[in-house]
Amino acid sequence: KKQYRIAVIPGDGIGKEVVPEGLRVLEAAAKKHGVSVHFDHFDFASWDYYEKHGEMMPEDWKAKIGKHDAIYFGAVGWPAKIPDHISLWGSLIKFRREFDQYVNLRPVRLMPGVPSPLANRKPGDIDFWVVRENTEGEYSSVGGRMFPDTDREFVTQQTVMTRVGVDRILKFAFDLAQSRPKKHLTSATKSNGISITMPYWDERVEAMAKNYPKVKWDKYHIDILTANFVLHPDWFDVVVGSNLFGDILSDLGPACTGTIGIAPSGNINPEGNFPSVFEPVHGSAPDIAGQGIANPIGMIWSGAMMLEHLGEKQAAASIVGAIERTLGERTLRTRDLGGNADTAACGKAVAEMV
Amino acid sequence: KKQYRIAVIPGDGIGKEVVPEGLRVLEAAAKKHGVSVHFDHFDFASWDYYEKHGEMMPEDWKAKIGKHDAIYFGAVGWPAKIPDHISLWGSLIKFRREFDQYVNLRPVRLMPGVPSPLANRKPGDIDFWVVRENTEGEYSSVGGRMFPDTDREFVTQQTVMTRVGVDRILKFAFDLAQSRPKKHLTSATKSNGISITMPYWDERVEAMAKNYPKVKWDKYHIDILTANFVLHPDWFDVVVGSNLFGDILSDLGPACTGTIGIAPSGNINPEGNFPSVFEPVHGSAPDIAGQGIANPIGMIWSGAMMLEHLGEKQAAASIVGAIERTLGERTLRTRDLGGNADTAACGKAVAEMV
Ligand SMILES: CC(C)[C@H](C(=O)O)[C@@H](O)C(=O)O
Ligand SMILES: CC(C)[C@H](C(=O)O)[C@@H](O)C(=O)O
Repeated sequence: KKQYRIAVIPGDGIGKEVVPEGLRVLEAAAKKHGVSVHFDHFDFASWDYYEKHGEMMPEDWKAKIGKHDAIYFGAVGWPAKIPDHISLWGSLIKFRREFDQYVNLRPVRLMPGVPSPLANRKPGDIDFWVVRENTEGEYSSVGGRMFPDTDREFVTQQTVMTRVGVDRILKFAFDLAQSRPKKHLTSATKSNGISITMPYWDERVEAMAKNYPKVKWDKYHIDILTANFVLHPDWFDVVVGSNLFGDILSDLGPACTGTIGIAPSGNINPEGNFPSVFEPVHGSAPDIAGQGIANPIGMIWSGAMMLEHLGEKQAAASIVGAIERTLGERTLRTRDLGGNADTAACGKAVAEMV
Repeated sequence: KKQYRIAVIPGDGIGKEVVPEGLRVLEAAAKKHGVSVHFDHFDFASWDYYEKHGEMMPEDWKAKIGKHDAIYFGAVGWPAKIPDHISLWGSLIKFRREFDQYVNLRPVRLMPGVPSPLANRKPGDIDFWVVRENTEGEYSSVGGRMFPDTDREFVTQQTVMTRVGVDRILKFAFDLAQSRPKKHLTSATKSNGISITMPYWDERVEAMAKNYPKVKWDKYHIDILTANFVLHPDWFDVVVGSNLFGDILSDLGPACTGTIGIAPSGNINPEGNFPSVFEPVHGSAPDIAGQGIANPIGMIWSGAMMLEHLGEKQAAASIVGAIERTLGERTLRTRDLGGNADTAACGKAVAEMV
């Protein structure tokens, strides 16, 4: 029987506090469902490591974690101590690029016990996935500055879309839509304003749709799409977007379901050539770090996504069910959700219910 | 006493239906406040004109409308009949570029009688401005495609930020913030992911802020900023963003206050070297065009913004007041807002109340 080897990287700030709760729940679920998991812990991809070594990760980071079945990642970044282009681009974005994690997958689901900022929405009304391209697009490193410090100064940056890059994320999104009862795909575009890359995106969506006659699809410009997330969140089933549009939609979506604080995500290499990274959507939250009050649900839910990715569907489902039951009890929720549990109490509650 | 000369361009679809109501209200307000306005009507920048002439506008369009004090514009575009890159880029976006309307200004205000999709928000809670850069940024025409129809195919498009372009929009936004009681400016960025242009934007914001010691300012990455529009719309006073970010925020903001259908906008050349364009945020809405049911409030409110821009503050304020009173009465609202008035009845109601 296969033993899964998971690389655990807590990172910075509340990452360090929520990872132990995520592991507690993963261990409980693994035990209950007869899944064998081994965890290897790493301290790099953090400010602490950078302070000691002058770099975010050791030179042989790929050798260290590249053969694991998955990476369980807390959060990275501490803007007051270290600039984003070092911390994020030296870890999180490096993983995405060098491990070819071209899918960023995030559920948008209204959970029991979490008050939605939207009026009159209840659990069940909002339940969709955002599929984000995770390696190219607007997050390119191509560009520069000319005529610095003069009135002629200008800066450019390219958005880059490759045929390979666009087609594979669309294929993933159409496959996901086809596997769901509603079979509905929505593409985020802005081809009326961004007049070269976005019409190309639209063109590839149309071509890919031909392979999926059972999937109903539509497209919205990103401006009205964000409006519709607020006005009609029940319209959506699978929403696919470029790196930037997916980034925006996968923060806005969780906000519409109450909080970024519980949202999970997967940075996925679907072919399994490289390990995928599972991490909560929230960041390292320096303002509340060290107090033991962070909400561990985003981290725990990311663990469920990791098990699902590994093919352990039952263990994954039992975690999601335990999250729902925990959130349903006010006393088991953390303070950000109007409860009074601390990080550990909330994590223990989920672990007991899996 | 000065007579204002306004170029009126109804455009397409419901543009043709809401413009007459906007003019009715403008005439009423002008009469009441002793303002003298003359309207010149133009049929170009529309599908009808394109069908007849094979182009969106006559060659001498600048001579025809370039000396007016302002342009009062309905809506343009009809994707089923004419591609966006012809209709929009041949009119609306041409005005913005060639008349150097570098400010796109849109209020986000929760009005009486308009149900917000956000829970527990009432008029007064949400009241801010989105200031959008309107000529450069992500809407560039620079880029192209290589290796077409092969696996190596790729497409690029540049985002372009010039010192002149960034500084002047920031100056406008800081000036506006400084003129308001809260004196609070929020900048939309994404410098953690879009690593060349967005750090430049941040740099210019910091430099500009030095000239405005009385303005409190902050910045958010666009992903969490859209989330905060939903979770904390009361945090904002003036929000400034690039062409794309401003576009997104100025659809999302009005959605949070209930509907895109009543939102106005100004495409402004602050120096007055060229006429500014005032238009509703909604488009030509082919699906409901021709039925006389479109909501004219966005068009009417755009008229108030136009009078404000011309310096006629009292006349402008009287229109905004009349809009508030009209929206407060169910029977005077159009159907999209749960009322039963048609376009003309709603327009007449506002005109009577100015
Ligand atoms: C129609 C489109 C090109 C336009 C834009 O993106 O600028 C519109 O969305 C707007 O906000 O005025
Ligand atoms: C931290 C940042 C670079 C990152 C992104 O924009 O990709 C984050 O917002 C995310 O969504 O994972």
